[in-house]
Amino acid sequence: MSDHNQYLNPNFSKKGLTEIQVPQLFSEIKKGDIASLSKGITLLESELTEHKEKANELLKLCLPLSGNSIRIGITGIPGAGKSTFIESIGKTIISEKNKLAILAIDPSSSLSKGSILGDKTRMEDLSKLPEVFIRPTPTSGNLGGVARATKESMILCEAAGFNIIMVETVGVGQSEIELHYLTDIFLLLLIPGAGDELQGIKRGIMEMADIILVNKADGDNSNAAKQAVKQLENATHYLQQNKYGRSVAVRSMSALQNTGVKETWEKIKTDLETWKGNTSSHDKRKDQSVYWFDQSLNNGLKNIIHQRSDWKKIYERLKAEIESGELHPFIGADEMLGKIIGKSNPDS
Amino acid sequence: MSDHNQYLNPNFSKKGLTEIQVPQLFSEIKKGDIASLSKGITLLESELTEHKEKANELLKLCLPLSGNSIRIGITGIPGAGKSTFIESIGKTIISEKNKLAILAIDPSSSLSKGSILGDKTRMEDLSKLPEVFIRPTPTSGNLGGVARATKESMILCEAAGFNIIMVETVGVGQSEIELHYLTDIFLLLLIPGAGDELQGIKRGIMEMADIILVNKADGDNSNAAKQAVKQLENATHYLQQNKYGRSVAVRSMSALQNTGVKETWEKIKTDLETWKGNTSSHDKRKDQSVYWFDQSLNNGLKNIIHQRSDWKKIYERLKAEIESGELHPFIGADEMLGKIIGKSNPDS
Repeated sequence: MSDHNQYLNPNFSKKGLTEIQVPQLFSEIKKGDIASLSKGITLLESELTEHKEKANELLKLCLPLSGNSIRIGITGIPGAGKSTFIESIGKTIISEKNKLAILAIDPSSSLSKGSILGDKTRMEDLSKLPEVFIRPTPTSGNLGGVARATKESMILCEAAGFNIIMVETVGVGQSEIELHYLTDIFLLLLIPGAGDELQGIKRGIMEMADIILVNKADGDNSNAAKQAVKQLENATHYLQQNKYGRSVAVRSMSALQNTGVKETWEKIKTDLETWKGNTSSHDKRKDQSVYWFDQSLNNGLKNIIHQRSDWKKIYERLKAEIESGELHPFIGADEMLGKIIGKSNPDS
Repeated sequence: MSDHNQYLNPNFSKKGLTEIQVPQLFSEIKKGDIASLSKGITLLESELTEHKEKANELLKLCLPLSGNSIRIGITGIPGAGKSTFIESIGKTIISEKNKLAILAIDPSSSLSKGSILGDKTRMEDLSKLPEVFIRPTPTSGNLGGVARATKESMILCEAAGFNIIMVETVGVGQSEIELHYLTDIFLLLLIPGAGDELQGIKRGIMEMADIILVNKADGDNSNAAKQAVKQLENATHYLQQNKYGRSVAVRSMSALQNTGVKETWEKIKTDLETWKGNTSSHDKRKDQSVYWFDQSLNNGLKNIIHQRSDWKKIYERLKAEIESGELHPFIGADEMLGKIIGKSNPDS
């Protein structure tokens, strides 16, 4: 029994990053070495410029090996049973000779730095299996940056031979949109008995989901689960197919009692098989690519001033004038932008 | 009785924007003309490039007349009684010969385009008074953009002679940070009987507030309100003063019965008077200015590609290659950024 998921702690090897030889790290990742994969992801997450360059080098090496996994998004409010569900479906997935990577996006509050997912070890059984890789993405920053880090981590996991990738997020609104752009299929976990408001799940989120799973359909909850399924089927019945030609399915299951879980896995596989024969699957991947292009670009543009010492100097001068009250921030920003657009602007 | 707050509907005059003569509009705003003020704000909110140029021109004219109002932020969960409180404190403010502008940030969901504040006319009494201007900022976009629009609207309101400006947001986490950078003093409205979790209000938000108001301290709620005040005083007792030398005050009031509201207004005035004699008030305004410089810059950088036809052409070419699958989005973004940083980069 391996305890390779000691790498659950993403801080384990930050100090070793600067000495990394990228080609060597890549060849270890390609062999499926978990420690190297984990180190590579830590490199991707680093904010240091020297690490970023190495991270880009590593990504470019991994890219040709990526793109062939099944990418599954899972979301739901805290307490919906996401971890239990992943434990349960994960065992089914593994039993079919797959390699499974689980990336958990952990939205720490920007104020309290607290973690919603908590520190306790989750998915205890899965974390012991050598064919499973679990990685939380800790985040105290903008969600866009986090999603990009997750997107890049997926590429490394694929290069390491993981053919099923699950991305888990806590359902809090924005993250569902990111998940939509990260994955092929998107599961929304709900629990029965939450009444009319459906746990704050808005119609828009239901529209984005491919499968809505009513979890905890066991014991005293069985009837409530049936009712919830009916209610959700009514609510989703009049939704149009999404632009990729898919409509929302509603199902109940019990992650705890392991009922309905295997069926969910079968449905995911069938759905994706049908869909991948379709042109609409190409449309989705195309939309996703353009989304990540724009996201990457926006992220890069934010830091562009620090890429040129002349720009940086102008920025510092303007900032000083703004601090002293001589210059209004909006006018200063206009001036800075003017310098970047530059004199060589063919339009001026 | 004027019904000048017909301009509550921000869409009323979008079609007239292109014909606007900025110097003329400015001179009407300076006179305190409400219709012109409203038109100016609509101009600020427009996304069209030609409108943006006019909006910047207008802002520059208004800037010298701005910066002298008292800026009050008000937040709280839906149902905390924000509108009733503003109606109530607004009447007190007006009775002292002030001109009051109320800017309500209305965070529409980016998915459902639904409005949390709803369509019903709120603050019915205030909206009829000629010395009161009420403006909802409708938003379907990123909160940063919204906060910038609000910041700019404040400048126009100040130029139009409004000396008290209230910014109302629904407490949903991120908006509190923006409020902090928009206002001089920040009120958090809570309701009693919400138990230990304090309505999801995290410690970080309490730390940002200057005054916590326990609303609905009336009738059957009186005891619960007293308890809530005690509980909050305990919770905030050990908080340090914030970096601007202020500590959180906790009070109870009833907006409905108009008790404790006048006292709140007196406290706001006394607090600000004491504080404005302090160097820490300069520190806060300085921090705010730098924040808005960075925000403006980031907003501008996002659109910078569209400012030069040569950059736009490169973007379109890369996008086409990405859509066809020839180019990976991250590599495309790197290439685009390289072109912007350019050959004239003195660092290369």
